[in-house]
Amino acid sequence: MEQNIYDNPEFFSGYYELRSRSDNYNDLLEQPAMANLLPDLRRKSVLDLGCGFGRNCLDFINRGAIHVVGIDISEKMLNVARSESSNEKIEYINMSMTDISQLNEKFDFVYSSLAFHYVENFAKLISNIYSVLNDGGFLQFSQEHPIVTATNNNVGGMINYDENGNPVSYTFSNYNQSGQRVINWFVDGVEKYHRTMGEILTAVADAGFIIKNVCETCPTKEVIEKYPFMEREYIKPNFLIVKAQK
Amino acid sequence: MEQNIYDNPEFFSGYYELRSRSDNYNDLLEQPAMANLLPDLRRKSVLDLGCGFGRNCLDFINRGAIHVVGIDISEKMLNVARSESSNEKIEYINMSMTDISQLNEKFDFVYSSLAFHYVENFAKLISNIYSVLNDGGFLQFSQEHPIVTATNNNVGGMINYDENGNPVSYTFSNYNQSGQRVINWFVDGVEKYHRTMGEILTAVADAGFIIKNVCETCPTKEVIEKYPFMEREYIKPNFLIVKAQK
Repeated sequence: MEQNIYDNPEFFSGYYELRSRSDNYNDLLEQPAMANLLPDLRRKSVLDLGCGFGRNCLDFINRGAIHVVGIDISEKMLNVARSESSNEKIEYINMSMTDISQLNEKFDFVYSSLAFHYVENFAKLISNIYSVLNDGGFLQFSQEHPIVTATNNNVGGMINYDENGNPVSYTFSNYNQSGQRVINWFVDGVEKYHRTMGEILTAVADAGFIIKNVCETCPTKEVIEKYPFMEREYIKPNFLIVKAQK
Repeated sequence: MEQNIYDNPEFFSGYYELRSRSDNYNDLLEQPAMANLLPDLRRKSVLDLGCGFGRNCLDFINRGAIHVVGIDISEKMLNVARSESSNEKIEYINMSMTDISQLNEKFDFVYSSLAFHYVENFAKLISNIYSVLNDGGFLQFSQEHPIVTATNNNVGGMINYDENGNPVSYTFSNYNQSGQRVINWFVDGVEKYHRTMGEILTAVADAGFIIKNVCETCPTKEVIEKYPFMEREYIKPNFLIVKAQK
């Protein structure tokens, strides 16, 4: 089972504050790209792995989904979801995504935003997802990009700046050395798993999925105009999004 | 049509010398990984795009292929192929890979080693390949990895060394800015095209292919033991290999 870092009070409050800011990377970079790739959800059932505050679950209902199950390992996150993103068609369950084979239900769409890099056994996760999907159904997930998860030095990769303070390049290491990375993010000891692009995509293909789209997030011109610091995102990929069909 | 740099005498002699050395990256890193992914070629017809010296064409015959067409834009490369890798089942044609729709033949396998990064219109190339493949046939290609093609500064990305001269990290830039890169490799003005992983893989999926394997080259322990300098390849991906089925 993956680490339940979101129930750590210090981590939770740091993360909650981050997501409350208007310039967080989820909302500027990852969520628009994810929304852009969503399949038609009308009359569909959806499973959201690592649903967090439940904002996507509510969005899926607004897009016409008839039933949404949101699971999260963190009871603290689900408390927010139940209070801020509740709906009679949404069911929130406190469960690790490594246990989804216990759900007695199949879904038309499995979604996961920025959670898979916490899971150790990726091939098993993808295979379990394949099992809970109906034929023709889609899996769509995002995670931290392998270039970002690669560096194994407690700090991670590094943006380099020129003498005027402009971001110019990115330095990373350890790409071809998969495995656990322990970093400081709000608190010490946050456990993530680095896997290469090749390992991730081949595992998706090996499970039987047809890969439909591979997206590496890049800021739009509109975002750059409003948040010039986002220009640094032209330098490197930040999040990886994969859409695949059973 | 892509630049015919291999017919430049200075470039050709530099490249020929490189491939004659036993420690070149093609033979240590890319060719073993490509060989590892080859489908069963017995009784199959093969098209090799950018066949160069024809070594792979000859290998395909040795693996049981019944007919191999090798095309290359460089007459100089084909002269070597015809003299060093000739076989009655192999046909070498001086042709740009952008013109393969002119071939009046379909193939069971389309192969290309380290040539696609010279082609400007990747989506069109992939779509043309799909057309010349028989149903169920495979496409397998390698190219320079997008992390390596990204940096737009005439020099490319950079390995960083510690005070003892050990390689420790890699610095790159311009990843999310696709397009032409003009670099110095044996001669000035070698034209290549940078595309992101997402752009490459989504183009393959969009053409109708089922992606079966995505491989980013990594040196084996045997290679590291014999050529310790190859340890630097743990730091970053170097070549990208994609295998897909029609």
